[in-house]
Amino acid sequence: MAEKHLATSLSRYLDGEFWETKGILWEEISKCDLFQHSSYDLSLEHIRDLTEDRLRYVLKLPVIRRHLEDQVKAIETPKCRGFITKSMGITEAICVYLNKVLIQLYDLTELAFTAMFAMTERGHGSNVRGILTEARYDPSTQEFIIHTPCEEAQKMYIGNAMKGNYAAVFAQLIINGESHGPHCFIVPIRDQYRVMWPGVTATDMKYKEGLHGVDNGILTFDHVRIPRENLLGKFGSVSPDGQYTSPIQSKGSRFNAMLAALTPTRLALTAQAMAAMKLGLIIAVCYSHSRRQFGPKAQDEVKIIEHQTQYLRLMPHLATALALTFTTRYTAGLMDDALCQGQDLQGNRMLQALVAGLKAYSTWANIACLQGCRECTGAMGFMMENRIPSLKCDSDAFVTFEGDNMVMLQVVVRELLSQHARETGSSLVAGLIRNWTSFASDHLRTSVFSFSVDKVGDLNFLLKALSYRERVLQRSLASRLYTKVSKNKEEFFNAWNSCLHHVTCLALAHIHRVTLEQFALAVRACQVKADHSLLTKFCLLHGTSLVYQERAWYLEHKYLSPGASRQIRSQLLELCRAVKDDALKVVADFNVPTCCIQAPIAGVANPRAEWGFYPKPEMPPVQTKQRAMSKL
Amino acid sequence: MAEKHLATSLSRYLDGEFWETKGILWEEISKCDLFQHSSYDLSLEHIRDLTEDRLRYVLKLPVIRRHLEDQVKAIETPKCRGFITKSMGITEAICVYLNKVLIQLYDLTELAFTAMFAMTERGHGSNVRGILTEARYDPSTQEFIIHTPCEEAQKMYIGNAMKGNYAAVFAQLIINGESHGPHCFIVPIRDQYRVMWPGVTATDMKYKEGLHGVDNGILTFDHVRIPRENLLGKFGSVSPDGQYTSPIQSKGSRFNAMLAALTPTRLALTAQAMAAMKLGLIIAVCYSHSRRQFGPKAQDEVKIIEHQTQYLRLMPHLATALALTFTTRYTAGLMDDALCQGQDLQGNRMLQALVAGLKAYSTWANIACLQGCRECTGAMGFMMENRIPSLKCDSDAFVTFEGDNMVMLQVVVRELLSQHARETGSSLVAGLIRNWTSFASDHLRTSVFSFSVDKVGDLNFLLKALSYRERVLQRSLASRLYTKVSKNKEEFFNAWNSCLHHVTCLALAHIHRVTLEQFALAVRACQVKADHSLLTKFCLLHGTSLVYQERAWYLEHKYLSPGASRQIRSQLLELCRAVKDDALKVVADFNVPTCCIQAPIAGVANPRAEWGFYPKPEMPPVQTKQRAMSKL
Repeated sequence: MAEKHLATSLSRYLDGEFWETKGILWEEISKCDLFQHSSYDLSLEHIRDLTEDRLRYVLKLPVIRRHLEDQVKAIETPKCRGFITKSMGITEAICVYLNKVLIQLYDLTELAFTAMFAMTERGHGSNVRGILTEARYDPSTQEFIIHTPCEEAQKMYIGNAMKGNYAAVFAQLIINGESHGPHCFIVPIRDQYRVMWPGVTATDMKYKEGLHGVDNGILTFDHVRIPRENLLGKFGSVSPDGQYTSPIQSKGSRFNAMLAALTPTRLALTAQAMAAMKLGLIIAVCYSHSRRQFGPKAQDEVKIIEHQTQYLRLMPHLATALALTFTTRYTAGLMDDALCQGQDLQGNRMLQALVAGLKAYSTWANIACLQGCRECTGAMGFMMENRIPSLKCDSDAFVTFEGDNMVMLQVVVRELLSQHARETGSSLVAGLIRNWTSFASDHLRTSVFSFSVDKVGDLNFLLKALSYRERVLQRSLASRLYTKVSKNKEEFFNAWNSCLHHVTCLALAHIHRVTLEQFALAVRACQVKADHSLLTKFCLLHGTSLVYQERAWYLEHKYLSPGASRQIRSQLLELCRAVKDDALKVVADFNVPTCCIQAPIAGVANPRAEWGFYPKPEMPPVQTKQRAMSKL
Repeated sequence: MAEKHLATSLSRYLDGEFWETKGILWEEISKCDLFQHSSYDLSLEHIRDLTEDRLRYVLKLPVIRRHLEDQVKAIETPKCRGFITKSMGITEAICVYLNKVLIQLYDLTELAFTAMFAMTERGHGSNVRGILTEARYDPSTQEFIIHTPCEEAQKMYIGNAMKGNYAAVFAQLIINGESHGPHCFIVPIRDQYRVMWPGVTATDMKYKEGLHGVDNGILTFDHVRIPRENLLGKFGSVSPDGQYTSPIQSKGSRFNAMLAALTPTRLALTAQAMAAMKLGLIIAVCYSHSRRQFGPKAQDEVKIIEHQTQYLRLMPHLATALALTFTTRYTAGLMDDALCQGQDLQGNRMLQALVAGLKAYSTWANIACLQGCRECTGAMGFMMENRIPSLKCDSDAFVTFEGDNMVMLQVVVRELLSQHARETGSSLVAGLIRNWTSFASDHLRTSVFSFSVDKVGDLNFLLKALSYRERVLQRSLASRLYTKVSKNKEEFFNAWNSCLHHVTCLALAHIHRVTLEQFALAVRACQVKADHSLLTKFCLLHGTSLVYQERAWYLEHKYLSPGASRQIRSQLLELCRAVKDDALKVVADFNVPTCCIQAPIAGVANPRAEWGFYPKPEMPPVQTKQRAMSKL
């Protein structure tokens, strides 16, 4: 079953610097029997075992071994360029088959033992600051006593809880009755023979909507003693006699620094969402190009991709998948740069905000995309053989875990507001409001009139429109908060809560702008003429689709005239039509191996579901691009 | 486990005329062991068996026996008032547990045998006219020979294919080589010992995203002989010597008449979608009123329902569920009236269009609602114990089966266009266009100016806005089609396809208007003052939410001023806030028995998932309604 993949110029450009690594990984996976069959018909126990076997196989591959060794180097000498970027490529490649990896990859030290990450508690998921698990220091034995004081403190949804050997447990560090805030402790859970560590209980949470290979469970600790050295010392340490020291003075900053450590995992979630989108789109686009239904009288039925609603429903998602490809790479690059310069991620809150926003945007985009793919493939898309249902069910959790999307959007906005306040050298709200008065003459607004019809097809127009919206939403939010908090003396939480819808709009507007900018930059940097011209169309489509979604706002602010708004709709329809055949090339250049695609409706024969087979569509002849583009 | 349900005035009003039947059914289900446990952890085989057992149990209940006998009477003497309305109530009540029933209920004649409905083919799902299965008449033996001539003619996705005894097969009737179009034939599939009928093959399609209790399969026929009497004679019959007669002259009308027979099943799908929405909302609203997270400094955390985004995400769906309750009842009533007057449903194309549109709108509304419920219940909502995942997966298929939603919307619009043409006594497109010129002085547009801010809180304003949009979309579509087809001589399919987005907007605009009208009428007819006032708020919310979704269109058409559009948004937020506590009463008055709710996060203890339990929230004290309402 091993396949050689031909890397076209576009596929290399999409996969980026580490396209070869991804290719090697996929070749290895294609060779291995463990990955040749889907697993939806297995019992929970078997699917968990299979997942573990797959995980161990992947971790033993030389290409991954080398990468994990680089990880250790990267931590010790932060000069290992491209580590995060490469990790994202690997995550995307692996997770099309193995959702468990992501959750554990970063926690692994030895292959013989596996670890888990125990932060979330029953009482506190998104609001991590409120966790209740305790780690009391006992100087007489130089141990920490890890304890679950109440039901609300149980560690919940912990992945690998039923199989893993160690846990990285977040708990309130308490010395002499004084709390120093949440810290991370390594706690043994079970030995290599799966015998539980005294005082530790693990409860299986069993059945979920998806991610069946991940054994989520509940951990409780009954006065579990661990040596002093098991406190991860990066953010604070305790001397044998119980003196606490930390490189970070304030408890708040320490907490934030700890949260910053989650940033790479969050970005990996974006890579996962992207991988799911790509798979869904490969399947839906292929089927839409081979299935025929309805047509002109007394003629052959047409391919369903020819139906206006079909291409309108699929093409914008494909554009988003491309935008996310470039934006994720940009973000991973920022992280690599920060690490290269020896910076800690906690210092870079802008980057944290970007990752948080990207996590929310990409995971929602993925859900919308897969739902579209499911509906556009009809009843075939409801059959497990065709892969889309399990992709949907697995990735549904992404909007919740590693930080609920609604919380992620608030992280973005807190940063957008404080960034601006820092720039103007004043307090959060007041800083923003100062510039408010000069707003009427904002440079972003290039004209006092609404944009006219002939401009809306221009990428610059689209970029400006998105920037404008972000800026206006930012300033109006600051103004509202200022009035509520400073003038009307409302309690901050209540004031913030009454603006929450506004907050989410701003956060998404920010991310929209970043994705279009990064897409546009990637198009500009693309050297191959044919690829450049293809990506240009998708980039325009992405921008048009983003402005179209928010056209009501632009009309309210008279940024678009009614005529221009209608033109945006026509442009959206026309661009979707113009790229529907190119879509086949794009999904082919995602370069996902056949054994990962699986779906018979996408041309992958499956003896268990012969009834589902539709041959792979042939690439349509090159389109008269001039015509399509000249209409814009 | 049997429960007595207290029927409040509101719950009776929501359940309608047959609330007692629904209550009896739920009481019976609550008493039966078969319904006490969820089934997500069973093998495919076991879950299918369990579903069959449940089905047989339900069908043997006296209340259902009586109803089925009424069905026979209704067919013979169409004077049995309320049959369809009652069926919808029963469907809604049963399907919270038993998705299989709907698919079969109407096909059952004897309890000893079960039947299946075999229309869809591999090559033709939504486009039924193109089915290829053949039924050739052999006068020498007075038999039909049912045959699958090619792979594309295989009957696919047939529910009950692996267990059922008979199939109602749609096939092209061929006599002496001449085709008379699709007709329906009763074909034996297997005997009571499950031995297959000669020439019939059934292939198990096995694993789907949901509806695991339904055994979908593929049927193929190899020259299967059935007696002449097995042609269902309603639309046409064949004499012993092979003479074809039909009460309906044209082949096209006959085909349409046959499709009309699907109308009640489609409406039942709306009842199912509604039932799923209600269940999801019960669970999400309860949890949102007991789970706490975040809050003002140094105070208790707040209930998550207090977060602006939480009530904004849930309340509009609750309003939609109410609107659908009344609209479904209205539609069932229309069907009952038609049957009482001895009309065939095929004569009533308006009703068919309404049902088609309602099917599309309700099944999409359900998907959006359940996705919202899933996300609003966080990781708990991802656990199978909490019911939302299986509701989602089961009802995902609703948008596809019994006619793909995109096709349903086109059914609506064809009727809207031809209706208008009939009124004006001319051909489809020309009739519409005639009135186009007088459009500038349309009565619906009450003012030449955009509506101002002070009007948008008025229900009449909202109703007019929805009517206006429907009318404008209808006329502009007619105008576009006229230009393309009559003036520019474009082929009709291509012209229609290039307007498909417009078509879907019009169809949904039509259904939006109908749901708000029916909701408003139901509010007006409500006698109990407190219920009336509560429903008024939800009705306003439904209308506001519909106009808000399409505010871009209203701004483009200057029907809303920018200020009014902003006011619509504030009104939406304010109404959602105003009803968030009432929501608890509404979901309680859905009156669904505990054994159907199951979810521990909604206060239903489950020994298998003790970790999921959250106590049922108490009803909050009656709100200061004056304040909430006076703001509008």
